[in-house]
Amino acid sequence: MDFPAALNWRYAAKNLNGQPVPAPKVDAILEAIRLAASSTGLQPFEVLVISDHELKGRIHEKACQQPQIVEGSHILVFAAQKTISAADVEAYMQRIAQVRQVPMESLTGFSDAIKGGLLTMSAEHFQQWSIRQAYIALGFGLVAAAVEEVDSCALEGFNPDALDELLGLPERNLRSAVMLVLGYRDEAKDFLAKAKKVRKTRPELFTEIA
Amino acid sequence: MDFPAALNWRYAAKNLNGQPVPAPKVDAILEAIRLAASSTGLQPFEVLVISDHELKGRIHEKACQQPQIVEGSHILVFAAQKTISAADVEAYMQRIAQVRQVPMESLTGFSDAIKGGLLTMSAEHFQQWSIRQAYIALGFGLVAAAVEEVDSCALEGFNPDALDELLGLPERNLRSAVMLVLGYRDEAKDFLAKAKKVRKTRPELFTEIA
Repeated sequence: MDFPAALNWRYAAKNLNGQPVPAPKVDAILEAIRLAASSTGLQPFEVLVISDHELKGRIHEKACQQPQIVEGSHILVFAAQKTISAADVEAYMQRIAQVRQVPMESLTGFSDAIKGGLLTMSAEHFQQWSIRQAYIALGFGLVAAAVEEVDSCALEGFNPDALDELLGLPERNLRSAVMLVLGYRDEAKDFLAKAKKVRKTRPELFTEIA
Repeated sequence: MDFPAALNWRYAAKNLNGQPVPAPKVDAILEAIRLAASSTGLQPFEVLVISDHELKGRIHEKACQQPQIVEGSHILVFAAQKTISAADVEAYMQRIAQVRQVPMESLTGFSDAIKGGLLTMSAEHFQQWSIRQAYIALGFGLVAAAVEEVDSCALEGFNPDALDELLGLPERNLRSAVMLVLGYRDEAKDFLAKAKKVRKTRPELFTEIA
């Protein structure tokens, strides 16, 4: 399946058949998420990758009992950083210095720019920003799943406070932002599995100014 | 270049060489954005696709004079819907009914669920939600550009009020969320063109609960 075919094949699966997604395919999807773009490269989020049956059942309760959560193979919970500190930025600079073999002093301008932009934000503003970075990575994960011919569904319909408590996120300075379920479509049960894709037309979505 | 190689080849280009991106490649990237997932399928955003030289210069002024804006071939401005009305939801239902050839009555439950979720949100909450949907599409666009071997850079550093006014977005109920510049990397000028990718390690980014 070529890339455009994969994008057309992808849809938000409403029912999955319980079949496990093989580890190499999960790995490829996680690697796409790891390589996703983020503003300044900070990756201000973590991802919980859950295949434990019992935990999926408990998440199901906090997420409007959406069937994909118990029918899916893996649930990825994108959890965005709630706050950021100067130490976080310094740790990122140390990583850059190490990977690229450059002196820390050469990164002072970049470090100051990040601190000036992010450390002055309100907690609410920072949280919105970190969630948006997680959504870019969600986009990478959705595309990578389609390329791997793995079905998926992004889910926003959950109680974030309850999910955060269940997963121990507050003590890790994290807030659940969105979930991505991976699995295989249940063509018999899911009335959307064969439905035509509904999208805005090109002229409705795009205004070209040439 | 296979898919993992494309993701590794991609980076946030800091300097572009002015070379135009051919129309078929731009079209493929726009089609990926059009096919991107969005919550409930509403696609609550539009995208301005700007290649006009003079307008790029004026955007450059509103966006911290970041060089990619004038060195790039196309600037995509992702503009998120500011508010939503019952009429917007009805128009979406009519589109579904037409594309899938189903009676409008069969969509009442879906329509009521969307209205219950979105029409009761505060304007601020809705705006945050619509921007997140635009960020999923940004993710699709970034990946599609890499697959097409087109360089890109997502840009958040701009004055949204000034950009909105320049582009006439408020009268279209839109708010600029993020930009995606398309073009070709300038390897001589961009010190990042050959820099190693810096990312969290797998264990830092992912917590597996199996």
